[in-house]
Amino acid sequence: MNRLTLALDVMGGDIGPRITIPASLLALENDPMLSLILFGDSQQISPFLENIPKASLERIQIHHCTRTIDNNQGVSYALRRSKNTSMRLALEAVQHGVAQGCVSAGNTGALMGLSKILLQPLKGIARPALVSMIPTIGGEKSVMLDLGANLECSAENLYQFAIMGSIFAEHRLNLVYPRIGLLNIGVEEIKGHQFIRDAANLLEKSTALNYIGFIEGDLLLNGKADVIVCDGFSGNIALKTLEGAAKNVLSLFKEPSKHYCLKPVFWGMRYLFKTNYQRLKRINPDEYNGASLIGLTAVVVKSHGSANVNAFAHAIADAAFQARQKLPEKILAGLDRY
Amino acid sequence: MNRLTLALDVMGGDIGPRITIPASLLALENDPMLSLILFGDSQQISPFLENIPKASLERIQIHHCTRTIDNNQGVSYALRRSKNTSMRLALEAVQHGVAQGCVSAGNTGALMGLSKILLQPLKGIARPALVSMIPTIGGEKSVMLDLGANLECSAENLYQFAIMGSIFAEHRLNLVYPRIGLLNIGVEEIKGHQFIRDAANLLEKSTALNYIGFIEGDLLLNGKADVIVCDGFSGNIALKTLEGAAKNVLSLFKEPSKHYCLKPVFWGMRYLFKTNYQRLKRINPDEYNGASLIGLTAVVVKSHGSANVNAFAHAIADAAFQARQKLPEKILAGLDRY
Repeated sequence: MNRLTLALDVMGGDIGPRITIPASLLALENDPMLSLILFGDSQQISPFLENIPKASLERIQIHHCTRTIDNNQGVSYALRRSKNTSMRLALEAVQHGVAQGCVSAGNTGALMGLSKILLQPLKGIARPALVSMIPTIGGEKSVMLDLGANLECSAENLYQFAIMGSIFAEHRLNLVYPRIGLLNIGVEEIKGHQFIRDAANLLEKSTALNYIGFIEGDLLLNGKADVIVCDGFSGNIALKTLEGAAKNVLSLFKEPSKHYCLKPVFWGMRYLFKTNYQRLKRINPDEYNGASLIGLTAVVVKSHGSANVNAFAHAIADAAFQARQKLPEKILAGLDRY
Repeated sequence: MNRLTLALDVMGGDIGPRITIPASLLALENDPMLSLILFGDSQQISPFLENIPKASLERIQIHHCTRTIDNNQGVSYALRRSKNTSMRLALEAVQHGVAQGCVSAGNTGALMGLSKILLQPLKGIARPALVSMIPTIGGEKSVMLDLGANLECSAENLYQFAIMGSIFAEHRLNLVYPRIGLLNIGVEEIKGHQFIRDAANLLEKSTALNYIGFIEGDLLLNGKADVIVCDGFSGNIALKTLEGAAKNVLSLFKEPSKHYCLKPVFWGMRYLFKTNYQRLKRINPDEYNGASLIGLTAVVVKSHGSANVNAFAHAIADAAFQARQKLPEKILAGLDRY
């Protein structure tokens, strides 16, 4: 692993420094070659940096700023008033080459808008997209995009998402010739919106892409496709529905607080269902935190607004991995291939 | 309960008579005031009617026909060639007043198209919709529409879905002033498609409807809203995603076939988690089979194409309930109120 600096918007999301700073320290501990620039209110940041190991402290730089972008601000309002906010300054650090990637848990629309302005889409990319990994019930992972950056999409947009997703899956999931599916409401070619059927026609014509057809919502977790392509609205609905189902089900299988005499049975069950329980836990969105904005000239990772310490640390590690892999460069090179 | 006759398309879906006929017999057993007219190939139907109680047999009428509508046919193709198909004949029986409702597991698009032509939308309804119940993790139920009948929707369409869904929930869930939520990708008023934000404005102005705001995919199972309103594409994606998640999770908790010595632990677990397991099972789509086409002059229930005997019997019972409750008449009356 080579040395790497990431810029962190530590004020974003519902969470702020009490989550982002402990997460930063965890990420630094796990990755000795990583340095972080923290953009945010130093008064709020400092209390969390007391009594930490020197080895971590010397890889942290604080860039004090007090302005932030609110989660509820509309994109255009937020962009106009973005000067000197923690999010904009973090992205500017990447723009000026001071950092090699950015992580924020802030307003997704603003992050997307600012990233497009400051970091620019890759040459040839019409619409950068929000991509994330989702678990499969067999213990593997799939890649899904777009998850909310582009509500209205054309067939050509979906086709480009497929290219970007395929390259992302090749590197992130270590696959060759990943299987690409289009999210739709049926597997027959007569089903769904016209732009999805047109995208299917485009993908079928490509020999470089491994397009396998439409995939319905009930098979998202089944690993039928390595890359699931959809418009941002449907993708966001599907992903959040999955997350909600997983969280609800996991909540039903928490350790009983009452019935002490039954605790041995609970632990027996845990043992018996160890593998299954691990699989179930893997569907937990915390383990899948960190959606990436791809199609930009640099790495930008969007953390869940409600991330916990582990989840935000995971998003930082994800950004570091992508920056070291030079994913933006690989996507740019891949655009010519397809 | 009063006497009631339903028309069944027993050839539809991936399933055919080997599922639909045993399901019909189960429905007749459970509902002594119900009669059924079975539309389909009598040669395929008859073997399943041997040795059945006379009390059931005399409430069955077979209308022989050999033509069917294929699941993969496009809607306009299917409609043009629908003459004398089991689906069309079943709907014509309702049109002519021979039956008071129809159940089919066949091609959803064709069923919708034929229903609109033969049974007509209610006066004032621009778009009939596909509605179903979904479980909540707390053991209650919510109503969700549209689930695939209308891929492209306007704000006015969503507003009418809200009215129909509200009346449906009043009767089907026995509620007063049901809470209505709009499915969206955020709870802020700046989020999502314009037509959804416009629908929110319309709903906010209505004092007769209990509109509570946007609801995201991760809260679908949480009973935050009694009626969840969405366009048909998003609704179908969300519902199938829920179903897939539920089926996958339930499959992880099946009884172990190996490890006989651990079976007592398994049963102990079942006992310990009895309530939770029951709740989990309740998310099983089999228990929620039967989406209804509402906004028509008569009751039409669409069963899952992959329904099992219990699930198809549930769809029949659902149609009987709605026909006895005179739901179409209640929706028509409700349109004036809102």
